[in-house]
Amino acid sequence: MIVVLRLGHRIERDKRLSTHCGLVARAFGAQKMVYSGQEDSGLEESINSVIKGWGGPFSIEHVESARKVIRDWKGKSVHLTVYGLPLQKKIRIIRKMKNLLVIVGGEKVPPEVYQECGMNIQVTGQPHSEVAALAIFLHEYFEGKELEKKFRKAEKNVVPQERGKKVTTKILKQTWPRHM
Amino acid sequence: MIVVLRLGHRIERDKRLSTHCGLVARAFGAQKMVYSGQEDSGLEESINSVIKGWGGPFSIEHVESARKVIRDWKGKSVHLTVYGLPLQKKIRIIRKMKNLLVIVGGEKVPPEVYQECGMNIQVTGQPHSEVAALAIFLHEYFEGKELEKKFRKAEKNVVPQERGKKVTTKILKQTWPRHM
Repeated sequence: MIVVLRLGHRIERDKRLSTHCGLVARAFGAQKMVYSGQEDSGLEESINSVIKGWGGPFSIEHVESARKVIRDWKGKSVHLTVYGLPLQKKIRIIRKMKNLLVIVGGEKVPPEVYQECGMNIQVTGQPHSEVAALAIFLHEYFEGKELEKKFRKAEKNVVPQERGKKVTTKILKQTWPRHM
Repeated sequence: MIVVLRLGHRIERDKRLSTHCGLVARAFGAQKMVYSGQEDSGLEESINSVIKGWGGPFSIEHVESARKVIRDWKGKSVHLTVYGLPLQKKIRIIRKMKNLLVIVGGEKVPPEVYQECGMNIQVTGQPHSEVAALAIFLHEYFEGKELEKKFRKAEKNVVPQERGKKVTTKILKQTWPRHM
């Protein structure tokens, strides 16, 4: 079980980046994203509409306290930060951790997160993007196998094409109401 | 030489995502990002300030016509799109291409791009993020070696830490004015 914790979401400023974090979490093999900061129904709707169309299992949930999530987590936690130890040096150890909380920051990460997480890990020591850091982390964790991941209850699936677009659409079996 | 072409930038909506694309391009080994759509001095300043602080070589430039960039490119081009052929199936061939234009879209990619680019490549068939797709593409292209990339003329460097933050700051030798 991998859960992504997105820190300090701000509705105005972070909507698209947090959405991308959630979509990357889902596409690259995490089961859930929880986020602290401002509760944002728009963010949740964006993620939920992708789950509805493209399958799961995945979920998104707002949390009041990121520190409580970190403290209460039953398993290991990894905080992705440019200041941490290089991913490529630690990934073998991390791959053995099966219940993993992956923490991705925003602009200002409280110092306690650096102290209370299990490990601080950098995806390069260069400034870039929490979206990219999360993708590379999960890609390395799953050793590329996540690229072939199948999702359950997907209404839509892309059929890879050399040119153009092809999407198959499945109308999921309606199980209710049975008698109509 | 790897150049990233970011399509259809909109100042209001895309500022942060295009900034993240540019930072990922730089951090993961490209030499330049060009972008079409609206010219955006704020985006360029964000990227240039990272180059100044963290080194290069890297540059950013606005272009009027994305199609002209694609047509005039002396080398191969790869368009990252969820509808394309799987990255993991094509990466061995792509690694042999040395002069590479990597095209990343926004919300609406003109159909001509699918026709005029060299290859359409998917980083999973799931909806996620152009920032993540670009990072994974470059990470696979360079086989992870980009994680260790050194940048020239960097004023700042992160010293990886288990806890906390450590950045070395170098005052670059002032070569002008010599006589003061």
